[in-house]
Amino acid sequence: MSQGGRTKIAELLQSTPAGSEVTAKGWVRTKRGNKNVAFIALNDGSIIHNIQIVVDVNKFDDELLKRITTGACIRVTGTLVESQGSGQRVEIQAGDIEVYGSADPDTYPLQKKGHSMEFLREIAYLRPRTNTFGAVLRIRHAMAYAIHKYFNDRGFYYLHTPLITGSDAEGAGAMFQVTTLDLNNVPKDSEGHVDYSEDFFGKPCNLTVSGQLEGELGALALSQIYTFGPTFRAENSNTPRHLAEFWMIEPEVAFYELEDNMELAEDFLKYLIRYALDNCKDDLEFLTKMFDAELIDRLKFVVENDFVRLDYTEGIKILMESGAKFEYPVSWGLDLQSEHERYLVEKHFKKPVILINYPKEIKAFYMKQNADGKTVRAMDVLFPKIGEIIGGSQREEDYNKLRTRVAELGIPEKDIWWYLDTRRWGSAPHSGFGLGFERLLLFVTGMGNIRDVIPFPRTPKNADF
Amino acid sequence: MSQGGRTKIAELLQSTPAGSEVTAKGWVRTKRGNKNVAFIALNDGSIIHNIQIVVDVNKFDDELLKRITTGACIRVTGTLVESQGSGQRVEIQAGDIEVYGSADPDTYPLQKKGHSMEFLREIAYLRPRTNTFGAVLRIRHAMAYAIHKYFNDRGFYYLHTPLITGSDAEGAGAMFQVTTLDLNNVPKDSEGHVDYSEDFFGKPCNLTVSGQLEGELGALALSQIYTFGPTFRAENSNTPRHLAEFWMIEPEVAFYELEDNMELAEDFLKYLIRYALDNCKDDLEFLTKMFDAELIDRLKFVVENDFVRLDYTEGIKILMESGAKFEYPVSWGLDLQSEHERYLVEKHFKKPVILINYPKEIKAFYMKQNADGKTVRAMDVLFPKIGEIIGGSQREEDYNKLRTRVAELGIPEKDIWWYLDTRRWGSAPHSGFGLGFERLLLFVTGMGNIRDVIPFPRTPKNADF
Repeated sequence: MSQGGRTKIAELLQSTPAGSEVTAKGWVRTKRGNKNVAFIALNDGSIIHNIQIVVDVNKFDDELLKRITTGACIRVTGTLVESQGSGQRVEIQAGDIEVYGSADPDTYPLQKKGHSMEFLREIAYLRPRTNTFGAVLRIRHAMAYAIHKYFNDRGFYYLHTPLITGSDAEGAGAMFQVTTLDLNNVPKDSEGHVDYSEDFFGKPCNLTVSGQLEGELGALALSQIYTFGPTFRAENSNTPRHLAEFWMIEPEVAFYELEDNMELAEDFLKYLIRYALDNCKDDLEFLTKMFDAELIDRLKFVVENDFVRLDYTEGIKILMESGAKFEYPVSWGLDLQSEHERYLVEKHFKKPVILINYPKEIKAFYMKQNADGKTVRAMDVLFPKIGEIIGGSQREEDYNKLRTRVAELGIPEKDIWWYLDTRRWGSAPHSGFGLGFERLLLFVTGMGNIRDVIPFPRTPKNADF
Repeated sequence: MSQGGRTKIAELLQSTPAGSEVTAKGWVRTKRGNKNVAFIALNDGSIIHNIQIVVDVNKFDDELLKRITTGACIRVTGTLVESQGSGQRVEIQAGDIEVYGSADPDTYPLQKKGHSMEFLREIAYLRPRTNTFGAVLRIRHAMAYAIHKYFNDRGFYYLHTPLITGSDAEGAGAMFQVTTLDLNNVPKDSEGHVDYSEDFFGKPCNLTVSGQLEGELGALALSQIYTFGPTFRAENSNTPRHLAEFWMIEPEVAFYELEDNMELAEDFLKYLIRYALDNCKDDLEFLTKMFDAELIDRLKFVVENDFVRLDYTEGIKILMESGAKFEYPVSWGLDLQSEHERYLVEKHFKKPVILINYPKEIKAFYMKQNADGKTVRAMDVLFPKIGEIIGGSQREEDYNKLRTRVAELGIPEKDIWWYLDTRRWGSAPHSGFGLGFERLLLFVTGMGNIRDVIPFPRTPKNADF
């Protein structure tokens, strides 16, 4: 495969022998020096570190050198030599330089001084050129790859569940409508309602909030599947934890009961975090230094501890007896807030916690009902700093129980007859969970705002780029 | 990781020693036999082959055995023994059987006899339980994994470009609108137009037709990126080649010129097809036997031949001089149809072809203009049977040329100022291409209809499940 006529800076810094004639291409981070020598810090995104280019000013045209400013893209051909003081093993003694594209210092928004995260969000189309977003995007890639590798190595099949859906049965949140009708002139039927027979799909359709229901169809045929795709919430929530468009991973496994599901979740999360520690060392060190001094320690905390398994009912008891002051109330039947989850993990157990057997009223209709008539076989995995990172359950595989629950909750059967049918024919015990990819990345990168772990965040009033 | 209390049938058939006590779980494909012995063919999706379960009828309860019909889900514990006549190395002598879920023979739609592809599309929620769709979905998984592995191993970063977009600049096709407005009561401004200030994003938004423009932003920061995500077309095309929702792979590489781009495309496609031949042997053999006798030969044809590189102008000349009868006209300036592409590949060169330097009028605005003023540095990769499988180009990196072309085509600058800006600051030569994932799967599986290579197809008037 072509390298585009260059050696990557990662390779130059790590393994190319000093003395080699090399070509590097990349973007100028800084240029400094004096009238005799200039030092250019060049980055190509292959690694967080820059390579230093040493330029004998007297050998180059003034006009060329003037065009080499922060943000410019250049080619440098020269000799890789051992470095005296660049902080790296090697640097390049420039022999020839070409400017592919300059960057006018009066207009280029990314000058060398630090910018606020808010400002960088406004120029999200340029922020991948910063150290911070380079690091975040490399880690994002590494985590996505590790997810595929984990499941592939274990015989799971990646199932592409649909994005556009005619069913809104899951009720996980407000949905975006997808339409080809002209909103300036919506066709109406004789009763004055929208005439969906003229819409593309012939009925109202939305963007999915979860691939789980279709994932179960896959698991009840192929045994082990996972989804990894975009999901959507049309909730008007302007918070550091909410996105309108985000990515989700949802494994679903036939013949799994809740215990198996917990084992999978713990093994999976530890694998991912170990993968980050092993493969993203430079980027994690940068983020630890710049943003979150406890980041690497927190990652190790997860890898090195067994996850506590605890009944919801026990968890509530611990919280009520803790004497701690919480903003939100604690009592049996209420959902836990992040502050409660973090108390259990950070203060009480000092380990990640898997909380199970939640009250059925606060969980989804498809969860398997326990014999007590009050709780379901739900599980939430709770982490330090962020609280819930995974939510899952054993699914109700009994046709009559599931159908009764659907009726109790007023979900129209016409929307999910196909889902119910899987319990009519060849039903089996099965379980699964959902991991929000950006939630994982908040944990792994230590970033504080979910808008800073996705390339182009979609939030209320914002769909730029 | 838990195996859910069973050994996968793939492992039982391939590597578990005869004589072992084993548990298998799966779905009954067939049951036959006589009053003394029953033979159950059991499948769990881990492999296309069934394992045979031999049941001594006299040792089991009649009522239990009656519930074991096609489609039922069962657990079998017993001894793995060498097989006499099942066509497999081993079979299971049943010691204990549990029925997880029966499948009423009067209602279960997937009886053992063959079903038409049309019928299976109507029950897409059940078709993963058939041999054909099991094979297709396993190959789909293998190809998705191979794509991620190929790019990861070569230092590309997986970039998640947005699905919801406020820009419709690419013009690759009709778009779906995404909205939270109430279509029964669309808010209007004082001039009677839709008041988008009340919509979720505060402006009209659509589902993306391509991640390329955002992909270029990534490449001009990280050097090598790829996208792999859903894309959408709201075209009212009811054909075996069109889906409203499909998946696309779009690598984009800084410092690549057209030659590098061609080399990447050829290497990438050969890698994927070799991966299928190496990893999906049983499924490919099944599809070759059942649907497309030339399938495996066609895959080998691609792997074993160098791709011809040819100017569009040369291609047109060959077609005009061929004496062949085509349905659609051939002349310089017209786009090629599938019949023309296939003629070049199958009849003339007998090799895959990369056609380059197309007339600029039939290609997108962002392609790099050649010095002749007439053509652009486009490339289409043409395959046997399906014609174009990849479309790509070197991108125009010159700010003024790109801006002029945008103006000529009447694209509003307000929609893509951010894209143009990448050519203002640190621009660089760069190239990329798009591979439709389902187009690839049509080629690799030999299926004739694109609705049969995606789990839940979305087409005009159809968004079921």
